[in-house]
Amino acid sequence: MSLRTPVARLSTRASPVQISRFAATPTSTLRQHQHLQQHGAARRRMATVPPVTQDAKGSKGPTAMVFMNMGGPSTTDEVGDFLSRLFSDGDLIPLGRMQNYLGRFISVRRTPKIQKQYAEIGGGSPIRKWSEHQAAEMCKILDEISPATAPHKPYVAFRYANPLTEDMYARLFEDGFGKGRGGRAVAFTQYPQYSCSTTGSSLNELWKWRSRLEGKRADEDNNNGVAEADGSITWSVIDRWPVHPGLVEAFARNIEATLKEYPAEVRDKVVLLFSAHSLPMSVVNRGDPYPAEVAATVYAVMQRLGMRNPYRLVWQSQVGPSAWLGAQTSDTVANYIKKGQKELVLVPIAFTSDHIETLFELDKEIIAEAEELGGDVRRVESLNGSKVFIRALADIAKEHLESGLACSKQMGLRCPACTSERCAESKRFFAGMQERL
Amino acid sequence: MSLRTPVARLSTRASPVQISRFAATPTSTLRQHQHLQQHGAARRRMATVPPVTQDAKGSKGPTAMVFMNMGGPSTTDEVGDFLSRLFSDGDLIPLGRMQNYLGRFISVRRTPKIQKQYAEIGGGSPIRKWSEHQAAEMCKILDEISPATAPHKPYVAFRYANPLTEDMYARLFEDGFGKGRGGRAVAFTQYPQYSCSTTGSSLNELWKWRSRLEGKRADEDNNNGVAEADGSITWSVIDRWPVHPGLVEAFARNIEATLKEYPAEVRDKVVLLFSAHSLPMSVVNRGDPYPAEVAATVYAVMQRLGMRNPYRLVWQSQVGPSAWLGAQTSDTVANYIKKGQKELVLVPIAFTSDHIETLFELDKEIIAEAEELGGDVRRVESLNGSKVFIRALADIAKEHLESGLACSKQMGLRCPACTSERCAESKRFFAGMQERL
Repeated sequence: MSLRTPVARLSTRASPVQISRFAATPTSTLRQHQHLQQHGAARRRMATVPPVTQDAKGSKGPTAMVFMNMGGPSTTDEVGDFLSRLFSDGDLIPLGRMQNYLGRFISVRRTPKIQKQYAEIGGGSPIRKWSEHQAAEMCKILDEISPATAPHKPYVAFRYANPLTEDMYARLFEDGFGKGRGGRAVAFTQYPQYSCSTTGSSLNELWKWRSRLEGKRADEDNNNGVAEADGSITWSVIDRWPVHPGLVEAFARNIEATLKEYPAEVRDKVVLLFSAHSLPMSVVNRGDPYPAEVAATVYAVMQRLGMRNPYRLVWQSQVGPSAWLGAQTSDTVANYIKKGQKELVLVPIAFTSDHIETLFELDKEIIAEAEELGGDVRRVESLNGSKVFIRALADIAKEHLESGLACSKQMGLRCPACTSERCAESKRFFAGMQERL
Repeated sequence: MSLRTPVARLSTRASPVQISRFAATPTSTLRQHQHLQQHGAARRRMATVPPVTQDAKGSKGPTAMVFMNMGGPSTTDEVGDFLSRLFSDGDLIPLGRMQNYLGRFISVRRTPKIQKQYAEIGGGSPIRKWSEHQAAEMCKILDEISPATAPHKPYVAFRYANPLTEDMYARLFEDGFGKGRGGRAVAFTQYPQYSCSTTGSSLNELWKWRSRLEGKRADEDNNNGVAEADGSITWSVIDRWPVHPGLVEAFARNIEATLKEYPAEVRDKVVLLFSAHSLPMSVVNRGDPYPAEVAATVYAVMQRLGMRNPYRLVWQSQVGPSAWLGAQTSDTVANYIKKGQKELVLVPIAFTSDHIETLFELDKEIIAEAEELGGDVRRVESLNGSKVFIRALADIAKEHLESGLACSKQMGLRCPACTSERCAESKRFFAGMQERL
């Protein structure tokens, strides 16, 4: 019962979400954003935007809702920069002291191959389109269900592609947040399950830019950069939401839609393969919480589906020679087909929009290979524009704003074998925001 | 709400469970059982026990409830045989064609060391005592809440210690099950989370003895050994129950009791370390479902606890030179203490009774080392005689008996990279029992 209540509420309240309205305007939104980026500095100097320090008119708003994700190149021209940033990220791919040099070297070598992959999926990643859509639509729902913190303003901050964290921060300033004017912002990770490689990296990047643009470095006065920054933005973090009932419902509905494509007599025999991006074993063994949280999502979705199908959690996108967590998605598909289990459904379970790993790796590589082996393998649609999902995002945000918490208890705990001082500082900073909430 | 309902029911119904009554009689129970083992063959020949084929008197009983677990040596004299069986089990420790030879060699070499460990925890494993207690008490509750399948008769079948699977089967015959007299038995794994190394191994062993004692081998007539065995025992399997609300409640209450030992001001800062037996990466990468199901248990327990404490899922008892799943419990404890996090609570999450891994490895090794580092590390009591837990077992059994299912959908699915024909046959046999239910 408890799992279904939010969904029942959802179906009556989701009507304001008008996908068609948004879908008609992405180009203009994009143009507007490019304009903002180019002229942001000039506009900031003019200071025509009123301050947004929370006042007493019954609302604590406006509230900036910042969607954090890895991002992807919107065009093939952006692939080089995207890969260069990705391989330079020591939180994602630890290459040691030679990180910047090695990262650039690897990215230059891989760019042509990856450009081809993006060309094959339509010339770029749709993740920016979906992220901006999800953020905008969520904010509309939030304005209704959380008037105390309205208006809610949508932002996107990608780790490796435009809009980058620094672009997002510039937009916050343009819109009247921070720089002595205070204001409230929520860093909302779009990875449902927490990994130091994903959400952790985005938070470290946000902390870095916040320190550069709005505060002294924490080590200067040993106050975590929180107390001294009068009029700086007050941040809180939604750092994980692996089993939120709305998320689970959104996954379950998309899975049910795919299962319905199979004839009734084989439907319950289809094997569900929940596929998540793998991690190097060095990260798993350091104590990264991601594998356990992904497993929690999978189990919650299977419970919602009544355990009607056999399933496995498998791991994709392994690169390089080191050991990664398995079983691997590609091997699993091939092995099951060879064992005679031809009906398989792939469920991307750790990412909420389409990206190269669904549109190319699953659709064009794994499913194509499976067809050659005689398999009947289909992929569940990514959450993308799912109204159930966007409503879930709004519910998660509302619960967070009402909780008055800077972040989860779990976020404050570093991995047992973590040696990154950047991680320690960043966690201390965000947890320290509690005193300003 | 849904999580708490069964517990509310529980507290009113658990009164028949009288631990003190049992605690006073383990020796006599044991003696009685030894007697049964010695004289079983003679008694079978006398055939004084009436047949138990299910009749029409309103009950489908009697029902044999067989608790499967790995077991442990009750005395130090049994350590050698225990280790020899353990290292000879290719489902647990795959050593290839030399399995029997190597297994015996390793066990002989390790016996003195392990004997010392058992001596330090009181001269033997308490797992037989707890298993017989849990099974007996559960059957009393089942007789009340599931009269349709009463009477329920408790049995224990250990994989590596007495009572072995063949001993249990002999007792079933003595008690009037099988051998042309039919009867109904439930193989109830006492591992909440399924691994091919644990529950899978026990089921393969059960299938082996069932084939030897009651049926033709499946490969003889290609009917899975199900149809031909007229009057043989009808088996069904409770193969996993990682997030059953009663199990979760039992864990949560024991954790709360341990947290209460800490002063109120530090209680919410204590880090919970859920510790489960690790698996070799070769087993993880084969697609074993255990790590994901353990993670599901952990998340469910944390939700029940309101996410008030930071936590990690960690893995213990790694042996040998090959790669195992981490982070390791012992390293994690040491790392956190070195980072200044001194209050840690260890929660054994994948085993329901005390055993060498709790009483020796956690209590005498890891906690002792932690104290030397200045840590304040405590261990949550194992479920052992928990009335909440035993009531959960009864609820799980009742739901299974009412479901009419031979096993879960998930049990029928082999691991993607499994090459064991024994596994394939065993799974086919138990799933095939569906036609007799």
